[in-house]
Amino acid sequence: MADVVQLHKSEGNSLLSEERHDAVLRLTLANPPANALSIALMEALSGALDKAATDDGIRVVVLAATGSLFSAGHDLKEMTAHRADADGGRAFFEKTMRMCADLMLKIAGLPQPVIAEIDGLATAAGCQLVATADLAICTDTSTFCTPGVNIGLFCSTPMVAVTRAAHPKQAMEMLLTGETIDASTAKDFGLVNRIVPKQYLRQVVDKYAAVIASKSPEALRIGKAAYRAQAGLPLPEAYDKAISIMVDNMLRDDAREGIGAFLEKRMPDWKVT
Amino acid sequence: MADVVQLHKSEGNSLLSEERHDAVLRLTLANPPANALSIALMEALSGALDKAATDDGIRVVVLAATGSLFSAGHDLKEMTAHRADADGGRAFFEKTMRMCADLMLKIAGLPQPVIAEIDGLATAAGCQLVATADLAICTDTSTFCTPGVNIGLFCSTPMVAVTRAAHPKQAMEMLLTGETIDASTAKDFGLVNRIVPKQYLRQVVDKYAAVIASKSPEALRIGKAAYRAQAGLPLPEAYDKAISIMVDNMLRDDAREGIGAFLEKRMPDWKVT
Amino acid sequence: MADVVQLHKSEGNSLLSEERHDAVLRLTLANPPANALSIALMEALSGALDKAATDDGIRVVVLAATGSLFSAGHDLKEMTAHRADADGGRAFFEKTMRMCADLMLKIAGLPQPVIAEIDGLATAAGCQLVATADLAICTDTSTFCTPGVNIGLFCSTPMVAVTRAAHPKQAMEMLLTGETIDASTAKDFGLVNRIVPKQYLRQVVDKYAAVIASKSPEALRIGKAAYRAQAGLPLPEAYDKAISIMVDNMLRDDAREGIGAFLEKRMPDWKVT
Repeated sequence: MADVVQLHKSEGNSLLSEERHDAVLRLTLANPPANALSIALMEALSGALDKAATDDGIRVVVLAATGSLFSAGHDLKEMTAHRADADGGRAFFEKTMRMCADLMLKIAGLPQPVIAEIDGLATAAGCQLVATADLAICTDTSTFCTPGVNIGLFCSTPMVAVTRAAHPKQAMEMLLTGETIDASTAKDFGLVNRIVPKQYLRQVVDKYAAVIASKSPEALRIGKAAYRAQAGLPLPEAYDKAISIMVDNMLRDDAREGIGAFLEKRMPDWKVT
Repeated sequence: MADVVQLHKSEGNSLLSEERHDAVLRLTLANPPANALSIALMEALSGALDKAATDDGIRVVVLAATGSLFSAGHDLKEMTAHRADADGGRAFFEKTMRMCADLMLKIAGLPQPVIAEIDGLATAAGCQLVATADLAICTDTSTFCTPGVNIGLFCSTPMVAVTRAAHPKQAMEMLLTGETIDASTAKDFGLVNRIVPKQYLRQVVDKYAAVIASKSPEALRIGKAAYRAQAGLPLPEAYDKAISIMVDNMLRDDAREGIGAFLEKRMPDWKVT
Repeated sequence: MADVVQLHKSEGNSLLSEERHDAVLRLTLANPPANALSIALMEALSGALDKAATDDGIRVVVLAATGSLFSAGHDLKEMTAHRADADGGRAFFEKTMRMCADLMLKIAGLPQPVIAEIDGLATAAGCQLVATADLAICTDTSTFCTPGVNIGLFCSTPMVAVTRAAHPKQAMEMLLTGETIDASTAKDFGLVNRIVPKQYLRQVVDKYAAVIASKSPEALRIGKAAYRAQAGLPLPEAYDKAISIMVDNMLRDDAREGIGAFLEKRMPDWKVT
């Protein structure tokens, strides 16, 4: 893998900034102040993830945001404008919700681990992005909420992600009261992994990304797929899936190299994919 | 909504006290010292919940208790008396357990959010009530246990609720040892949301209830139903359900009003149902 | 139950030490320094659990380890040697993974509660053993990891257990980074129940085991089976199972005796099974 840093802004799209540092793809929501998940931003993000999914050189994806708000969720102005449609907006709302859920499923199903980097408020579908990412690292001043009850629109789709990240009562407190929780509570709830002072956020995220990028790319891809394959299955069926995945993993090059290196007390040399 | 306070004791039932303050229904187990969930108390509670379910004016239900014991669970004297039945009590035990489970399912399925207010010990099916409520707020001297192993009757039905509220090892510690945990541990486990000094319990619960009651009743009802609809489903199916619920929610009056108010920076005026 | 202490080393097997103290069976991995889960050790452990499962005198099983490493998981040397097999090791890897998963399912399905006693590092399938046990008690210097990504072999089977014990983001941090967590983090994650200073480890585990062993053996067996029967089911189906188990439990001797003793304010005298 080349040691040089590649930097390029995604062409023709000012809503999402893309940077590539070695094996780490950094996607930055660049639609401040709200970084609202408009159709255009969701399309840009979805497209960038599709590209990443088939790029074997990318081992980790970081999802960050510009400004003091990670993301405020759906673009309420855009949605409201479509109330004037002949169907009262139904088709557009369906398109929006389906695109958003597909985006979350894409993150969950991405071959590479996804780290959310949060500095500021993550609300509604923005909080759902955080809950959906494999890992989340935030500043100590970051806050989180699912405030749909305040606008008559319960955060039902964010709930899918939040109730799978935290305990039911903790998720329901956020969902029913709409109140904002601080970073420390979010960590207790299981919504974020690490809290860092603002000046170290990027450094810590980069380190996490570098640590993960240094691991066997083959094993990471197998592992993330394995998580989804067994999630929610009864214990015996979950083990059936995992056994088959693990045996296949053992027979691949990186396991041979990695276990060999471990037994010979040397650094592994992962297959370049 | 009227600002006056309505207070009325449920007629002909001294086991359960009912108070109505604006949109908040307060149900108080009034069978001290144990507040045992006898058939009579379960029937009273179940009936009150049935009435609440169809009363659109009720937006939040609080479940409290008189005395220093929230609830000790099943009425062991009542059950023991039925050992003298021709079938050794089987039919009565089935009736008791079915009624208790139906009560828990009714709380989980109630259109309105349910807040448990605990001051004292919640044990066995009493602890199950706490675990089943959407939110739980307790005093710092409250305690919780599932002590069935001490009396040869494993807390199998309370386990259904407790293992869905807390991590498996935490639930199993309560269930296998029968030991009592303090409020702080219960909060760590996810069994309660907030711990408050005794003198502020009612005030904090009232505030929670008022906060929730100020939200869109339509959104709250949609949200609580959405939680049950998607719970435990695989991620894609959960999103299918949530998308459909969310689109429907967008097309309702309160979402139109709430989002409109938000964009116009004014307070929303929820549809009176 | 006899008050005498029975001690015997398992015959012809130096990999696993077995001790019996009253109703507590203590199984000690005795294959230091790594206590690797070789085929031979897994067979010994599996055999000991099979024996325990049908021995009504055993009420609790403790799973401990000699040396400063609880268990390092699979025996990588043994597995690597089988790469020379005609099939590249596939059959042996399948045997290993199936045996390991069956061992975990055996622990989860054992009639008796299983307490893991950890002093040192538990890694990969060793961490899976900890996650699988009903309860886990560790020293304050114990550590935990699932480092498969370091050797190109993702911890997919340990993931089955770890993701069922902890929140997804917490589990994924362990799995994706391979990094080691301390005892306190493991407790926060739900992987262990108690942390004790090294000099008190055995004493605390013995006390937990004695407490559990003092409970109704009938209720414990019913309860552990009930946990598995309802785990992961939708709420109504989970209650259907639990009701039926609870009614059956009520009609058994220990419930009659235990409830009777409780109402009469005397100590229960459990049926000797």
